[in-house]
Amino acid sequence: MNIELAVAKTNKYASRESGDTVEVIERPHGGFSVVLADGQGSGRSAKATSHMVTAKAISLLKDGARDGVAARMVHDYLYTYKGGQVSATLAIISVDLVTRTLVLTRNSHCPVLVSGPDQPELLVLQGSSNAIGIYPATRPVITELPLQENTYLVTFTDGLMEAGVRDNRPIDLMSLFGKALTEGKIDASSLAEYLLAQALEADGQRPADDMSVVVIAMPPGSQQEPGLIIPSVRHLTMDFPV
Amino acid sequence: MNIELAVAKTNKYASRESGDTVEVIERPHGGFSVVLADGQGSGRSAKATSHMVTAKAISLLKDGARDGVAARMVHDYLYTYKGGQVSATLAIISVDLVTRTLVLTRNSHCPVLVSGPDQPELLVLQGSSNAIGIYPATRPVITELPLQENTYLVTFTDGLMEAGVRDNRPIDLMSLFGKALTEGKIDASSLAEYLLAQALEADGQRPADDMSVVVIAMPPGSQQEPGLIIPSVRHLTMDFPV
Repeated sequence: MNIELAVAKTNKYASRESGDTVEVIERPHGGFSVVLADGQGSGRSAKATSHMVTAKAISLLKDGARDGVAARMVHDYLYTYKGGQVSATLAIISVDLVTRTLVLTRNSHCPVLVSGPDQPELLVLQGSSNAIGIYPATRPVITELPLQENTYLVTFTDGLMEAGVRDNRPIDLMSLFGKALTEGKIDASSLAEYLLAQALEADGQRPADDMSVVVIAMPPGSQQEPGLIIPSVRHLTMDFPV
Repeated sequence: MNIELAVAKTNKYASRESGDTVEVIERPHGGFSVVLADGQGSGRSAKATSHMVTAKAISLLKDGARDGVAARMVHDYLYTYKGGQVSATLAIISVDLVTRTLVLTRNSHCPVLVSGPDQPELLVLQGSSNAIGIYPATRPVITELPLQENTYLVTFTDGLMEAGVRDNRPIDLMSLFGKALTEGKIDASSLAEYLLAQALEADGQRPADDMSVVVIAMPPGSQQEPGLIIPSVRHLTMDFPV
């Protein structure tokens, strides 16, 4: 099975820095985790918050913390150092090769949408959870799903979710995601590009807020010729306009 | 200008885990860093070493450490906890948007190859530097180059560098890299794919060691239509066979 990840992000219009930060790390026992944080506000101070939050989270995860512990600790850290005055949303999406599960840890009002195999309906993970940093002892909402082919997952920050709201033409990410899958956009990059493009269009190419989208795709594997040795290669690519 | 990064890696033949670890993080003041470590030996213990080394390095870099400090500290950490018994090679390749430079920090016998604008010859950074973990107070070799369009950089672990040596048909990475650029392979992914494919071929598709390759490319920018608003989008993609 091949697991694909795609992240696409852009800034609020006329803002030099994005208050969203996304980091991806390899997990100590196998697999990877994506950490997505949206710092309160926009610009430099929002960036500093989301940077601090993701820095702590990836350091804990690399040191072997389980995801729920990492999310709690990151909250405690932000709450301690910012005195309950600064909030951030946090999502940790992990592909855990030990448990062979997707582990979805949310401290956010933004949902995680999952299209699983043999399920006609999208699973919408939107159980109520607080952003981190404001209330004492905030806990995440955690969902674990089996790693299976034909699973597609998307999550995002509220800049994407609320695209178009300013002009009273909100986008419906659930139906856009379902439509993209139906149309055969089943690689992670195409899904991420499509959803971001729709959001940018809804905001007239001038995003009202920082936007980030994270997609994980497990498309059906191609049949391998028996006896043929093909080394298994991992790839990562990034592009970064400056 | 668009800065592209590509990483490709594979395991030693018949080994379940790669002793190489590559992590990419966003820098606190803008830009990104790639940390590449190759742990001594192969298999599980090599993986644990390179994981520990990269975990420490990215935690320090995210917290604002300058690259030379991060490399020294990672050495001190490995030397302290492993008592000088375990070594690793370490390379930190940073795109620093504050200084507008590429910062190349090496504790490795593997070189960094750079093709710059207006330079017919490849720059080969191979100043002698020790692997970390073995000798007291090991220092990195650091090179700083301007961020300029038409710059292409590659580095790798010794599994790639020594491909084919077992069968007495070593590859010449300098000439392969130069050839690829001459043939117009100027996007980071194509360069990484090409070099890894050549190394796999030299090893008969059964890599004698873990192989990783990191490419940074700054291809010439396309002309933007004046007046057209195009939001600047960053992308990251990964694929991960399991």
